[in-house]
Amino acid sequence: MKISAQWNYPTDIRLGRGRIEELAKICRELTMTNPLLVTDRGLVSLAITRTAREILRDGGLEHQIFAEVDPNPTERNVEAGLKVFREGRHDGVVALGGGSAMDLGKCLAFMGGQSQPLWHFALGGDGWKDADPSGIHPIVALPTTAGTGAEVGYACVITNLETRVKTPIFHPRLMPSVVICDPELTVGMPRTITAGTGLDAFSHCLEAYCSPLYHPMAKGIALEGMRLIKEFLPRAYRDPVDLEARINMMSASIMGAVAREKGLGAIHAVSHPINALFNTHHGTTNAVLMPMVLAFNRKAIDKKIDRLASYLGLSGGFDGFCDFITGFRETLGISQNLTELGVPADQIDVLVPLVLSDPAAATNPVRLTEENVGDLLRSCF
Amino acid sequence: MKISAQWNYPTDIRLGRGRIEELAKICRELTMTNPLLVTDRGLVSLAITRTAREILRDGGLEHQIFAEVDPNPTERNVEAGLKVFREGRHDGVVALGGGSAMDLGKCLAFMGGQSQPLWHFALGGDGWKDADPSGIHPIVALPTTAGTGAEVGYACVITNLETRVKTPIFHPRLMPSVVICDPELTVGMPRTITAGTGLDAFSHCLEAYCSPLYHPMAKGIALEGMRLIKEFLPRAYRDPVDLEARINMMSASIMGAVAREKGLGAIHAVSHPINALFNTHHGTTNAVLMPMVLAFNRKAIDKKIDRLASYLGLSGGFDGFCDFITGFRETLGISQNLTELGVPADQIDVLVPLVLSDPAAATNPVRLTEENVGDLLRSCF
Repeated sequence: MKISAQWNYPTDIRLGRGRIEELAKICRELTMTNPLLVTDRGLVSLAITRTAREILRDGGLEHQIFAEVDPNPTERNVEAGLKVFREGRHDGVVALGGGSAMDLGKCLAFMGGQSQPLWHFALGGDGWKDADPSGIHPIVALPTTAGTGAEVGYACVITNLETRVKTPIFHPRLMPSVVICDPELTVGMPRTITAGTGLDAFSHCLEAYCSPLYHPMAKGIALEGMRLIKEFLPRAYRDPVDLEARINMMSASIMGAVAREKGLGAIHAVSHPINALFNTHHGTTNAVLMPMVLAFNRKAIDKKIDRLASYLGLSGGFDGFCDFITGFRETLGISQNLTELGVPADQIDVLVPLVLSDPAAATNPVRLTEENVGDLLRSCF
Repeated sequence: MKISAQWNYPTDIRLGRGRIEELAKICRELTMTNPLLVTDRGLVSLAITRTAREILRDGGLEHQIFAEVDPNPTERNVEAGLKVFREGRHDGVVALGGGSAMDLGKCLAFMGGQSQPLWHFALGGDGWKDADPSGIHPIVALPTTAGTGAEVGYACVITNLETRVKTPIFHPRLMPSVVICDPELTVGMPRTITAGTGLDAFSHCLEAYCSPLYHPMAKGIALEGMRLIKEFLPRAYRDPVDLEARINMMSASIMGAVAREKGLGAIHAVSHPINALFNTHHGTTNAVLMPMVLAFNRKAIDKKIDRLASYLGLSGGFDGFCDFITGFRETLGISQNLTELGVPADQIDVLVPLVLSDPAAATNPVRLTEENVGDLLRSCF
């Protein structure tokens, strides 16, 4: 099955094998003459990066590369990148990579022409309204993983080195102008990353689907996103070069990111501080937590999950869905609980307040309290 | 149930009872100081129009009103409106109404600062790339019906008086900057329009869901859109002031319009020329054609419809879904066939080539031919 498509929302998205070939043409259409290619240290020497550079060069586009990106990009990465961006008089960014390169690339294109400091634009405040629109440069996103959804987000997450807090920076124009989803760019992912990022997308869809907020468009996207992941993630995991599976996972990544506008929940509220404190992989941690959070939320979501199970072709309603999740995790090599993941069980008291203050806590179907979060955490070890 | 929400795609959408109160504030945020309020002759004297004007006035916004909009707006309406827009030095449009006022309002905001003639921007060509971005003015959409989806479209349809063809004009910035979905604006709709526009949204969702194009995000939106319409359209039809039903139908209208990026099919390909030749209501005609087109496409869509039926809680798979559609139409006072709708049965030969050349024909699940379109049309009388 040869899949090729162009979508107009949430932004201009071009899907299909080999579509990286359109990179130079797209950059020119966005009036770039001298983009900065932002990627990470792991990708910089790989063939896909060389290919991207050749396409830019053959298309007559001067460019430079910047790869000093930490796995959780920091303000130091932003400063170093901005220096290169400004000194090189770049007029746009091509962001090639997973969530980290994507976030940093987006951040550089946005900050390139701003005079305020980075934290002025932190999500939640009104700072974004002060941005100088003429100083925001166009972004082309080339994702190499399928799950975080950073390729279609309005935010980029930068770690504040002073507070040690991962801080989302927000502006409507942090959304890349064009996203090229070329499945060949994702075949090189390590297996565990295929599983972890894919389950990250699943957790975006699942929590958005269960959130109590009113957003039927997001709900429908979440529903179909889970169907895709159920069908295609095991295939991509088993056979890394299954391009049909890979492109469907790229779609699911976008769908999870779009759906999460409906709200997330306790999977994310618990995962975030665990990732930050114990350096666990975000998507993998989400996958570990999924059955426990489902059980925790049961009384508020069982009817919704019944309908989901039936759409996914699973019998047994809520219980059937939970059994499926447990088996799905196993197939994908995910740990059964936080202990197996290497998280120490004696930090529950430290975690509880962090979970409660996480932005995702607000839209969990069951209201989170000090007491029930303690119980939930204990059930995860 | 008090529903209030704000969505960011496909554009900035504010849903909720009484949110029309935000109109002046939103106009100012979009830098309008002197908007043109575009509506139609039927709405101009109604209370909702007076309310909108008062809100603008109280918010300190000078404005004028333009209501010379035909049910299918023509280039003559565009010319008259542009004269008012330019002479009044307006800097934005508030479009209040159903599809026609919405389309004309969008067109005026776009054409206000263009020097090329209207048809230069016809959909399908590259003309839109020549538009002067600084001459495109912001648009706020206030829909008063729920179904066409014009409030979230990138096109506006204007009838060319010379060729008599309804011609879509395209530009990415024909998408309104903000849409206010206030369910109180829709309670005054005549019952037949509630049914006809609601079933228009259903037909967008159904055809998008069945289209063979790859667009899983649109597929999910279509699926949940149909669930909303199944639940809420009969309620809005029975009880016009059921605001929960009304706001859900406004959501479904947006969802149908977003989903149709996946493609439409024979319902629309047959409906368009029938609307044009016999002046039938578009959504109502779609509803009449639905069971016949489902039967026609059966072999290509039965598995998809099985899954849809199960999600909608209908037993009996494909047949159960068809029975539901027939009953649904009946509940909503829709004619059973084209004869009942007043279409003469002796024009099939005239219709066949028009159906085949309609843009929606290309994405019907079963390839349309002269022969099978003749058979399909005969089954509709």
